[in-house]
Amino acid sequence: MMSGAMKFKNCGSVLITGANRGLGLQLVESLASGGFSPGKIIAAIRNITGAQILQELATEYSNVHIVTLDAVNQESIEKCAEEVGQLLGQEGLNCLINNAGINVVADFHSVTAEKMIENFHTNAVAPLMITKAFLPLLKRAADRGGLGTMGIQRAAVINMASLLGSVELNWGERANNIKWYPYRTSKSALNMVSRCMAVDLEPDGILCMAIHPGWVRTDMGGSEAPLSPEESVASVLSVIGGLTEKDHGSFLNFTGEQLPW
Amino acid sequence: MMSGAMKFKNCGSVLITGANRGLGLQLVESLASGGFSPGKIIAAIRNITGAQILQELATEYSNVHIVTLDAVNQESIEKCAEEVGQLLGQEGLNCLINNAGINVVADFHSVTAEKMIENFHTNAVAPLMITKAFLPLLKRAADRGGLGTMGIQRAAVINMASLLGSVELNWGERANNIKWYPYRTSKSALNMVSRCMAVDLEPDGILCMAIHPGWVRTDMGGSEAPLSPEESVASVLSVIGGLTEKDHGSFLNFTGEQLPW
Ligand SMILES: NC(=O)c1ccc[n+]([C@@H]2O[C@H](COP(=O)([O-])OP(=O)(O)OC[C@H]3O[C@@H](n4cnc5c(N)ncnc54)[C@H](OP(=O)(O)O)[C@@H]3O)[C@@H](O)[C@H]2O)c1
Ligand SMILES: NC(=O)c1ccc[n+]([C@@H]2O[C@H](COP(=O)([O-])OP(=O)(O)OC[C@H]3O[C@@H](n4cnc5c(N)ncnc54)[C@H](OP(=O)(O)O)[C@@H]3O)[C@@H](O)[C@H]2O)c1
Repeated sequence: MMSGAMKFKNCGSVLITGANRGLGLQLVESLASGGFSPGKIIAAIRNITGAQILQELATEYSNVHIVTLDAVNQESIEKCAEEVGQLLGQEGLNCLINNAGINVVADFHSVTAEKMIENFHTNAVAPLMITKAFLPLLKRAADRGGLGTMGIQRAAVINMASLLGSVELNWGERANNIKWYPYRTSKSALNMVSRCMAVDLEPDGILCMAIHPGWVRTDMGGSEAPLSPEESVASVLSVIGGLTEKDHGSFLNFTGEQLPW
Repeated sequence: MMSGAMKFKNCGSVLITGANRGLGLQLVESLASGGFSPGKIIAAIRNITGAQILQELATEYSNVHIVTLDAVNQESIEKCAEEVGQLLGQEGLNCLINNAGINVVADFHSVTAEKMIENFHTNAVAPLMITKAFLPLLKRAADRGGLGTMGIQRAAVINMASLLGSVELNWGERANNIKWYPYRTSKSALNMVSRCMAVDLEPDGILCMAIHPGWVRTDMGGSEAPLSPEESVASVLSVIGGLTEKDHGSFLNFTGEQLPW
């Protein structure tokens, strides 16, 4: 069986937000070096300072392009979409990965309205505003892909969701171990945003779904996490590469299984 | 079979937010006049101007008390909790109904970050901040209720949720008919908040759940809605009155059936 990740070979362009570290950086690296590299890999970061590894990747792989994007700044989002539009021209954007995210840790006692709103803005609102800004580029790619099945060979929006955003699974031991109000709420809100967007992007042939990358050793995941970024991203890319119509509007684990809302 | 609503007779106090019109006002009226009136009905409103009907109810029924509460103002929330604490004394608060809500209508094209955040703040964050502020009063009531089963005879937090907040049901025809990004997202976020709070309130014996009141003819629901406020509230009170442990952390329809997240 061909791994889904090989499908990225037939994908013109992928844009990843939050690409300077963690899963975002690993997505760039794995796509660039994996032997299934897409035409263009666009690494969007909010600050070039400290993005050494990414800059080295861009030097080593000529298809890696760095652009500036602050996910909670509308002007920055629009400027980035314009810049990427010029870079991609008539080909459009095949795959947008909304990966940038934060975890504003707070339990019932320490949570405030400000913390809830900050996490919600970055994790749920930003993917929506970014997708809106890149819609013309996604449409262009979907149109060129013709009337075939949905997937990254046409156009797709992938939202980095989380198991912690599952309302159903927030019960019993799982719930008692991780009581992060702002993060959990932002990620369940992101699931609704994904689903709303799936409904609206369908007529344009643009696939939209949410994926949980597993618990991963990054700054956010911490050192206790069972998965390395390489392991997580290998699975995530395999799932994304293999997406078709039937996955439109879904919430999948990095292993490819469906997760409950 | 005794209607669940009759159980309000054994309930010392109920506080309802957004009680000047719509479902909030109807909750006050039905509780005051229904022959199963709780000890005290506390109607929390942000602005006394224009609250004529409520003021008339407070004149007619001596157990109706009006207090001021702006759900998105932390100072107002805390002042209200203090005032209600003085009103209820050692009895505490048996039932908090987080009913206040707004619908910031916007589709994929007209939605902005500001609209998303405004709706999220009122519909998902405010119920959390209000519950936090009233927790000491809820605990007091739950303690006095002894170690019996959970329910409004001890203490309960009821969140006015919506079918439109169900991610699962946001698909197909239902989804295409109502594309309200800020509202849908805020109500799915509220479901996560309800579930998180259920986990944290359980050790104190405080029940917490989310209920969909049906589609109702109010300013928000519009004149096309199939249910009158009286009909909706009769069902809602019957469900709330009958809540026990097994409903803790649930998302119920006004008919009492479980809804998917
Ligand atoms: N790690 C896990 O176990 C895990 C599990 C489930 C889901 N996830 C999700 O996976 C995604 C990536 O997580 P991670 O573990 O790689 O996190 P991470 O190591 O903390 O990295 C987060 C990335 O997001 C970027 N970012 C945050 N706010 C931004 C903004 N306003 N504009 C632009 N970029 C912004 C950060 O950039 P700066 O360096 O500029 O801050 C950084 O590149 C997140 O959405 C996360 O919620 C992670
Ligand atoms: N009607 C339906 O079909 C339907 C369906 C599903 C769910 N719901 C939910 O049921 C609840 C009540 O809806 P409704 O139909 O009665 O709506 P409504 O007629 O529009 O009334 C909304 C109420 O919320 C109050 N409110 C809004 N923001 C507030 C704030 N910041 N502080 C204090 N009060 C505030 C309003 O007070 P002001 O007068 O001061 O604005 C008003 O009393 C809402 O949570 C709604 O989402 C309604």
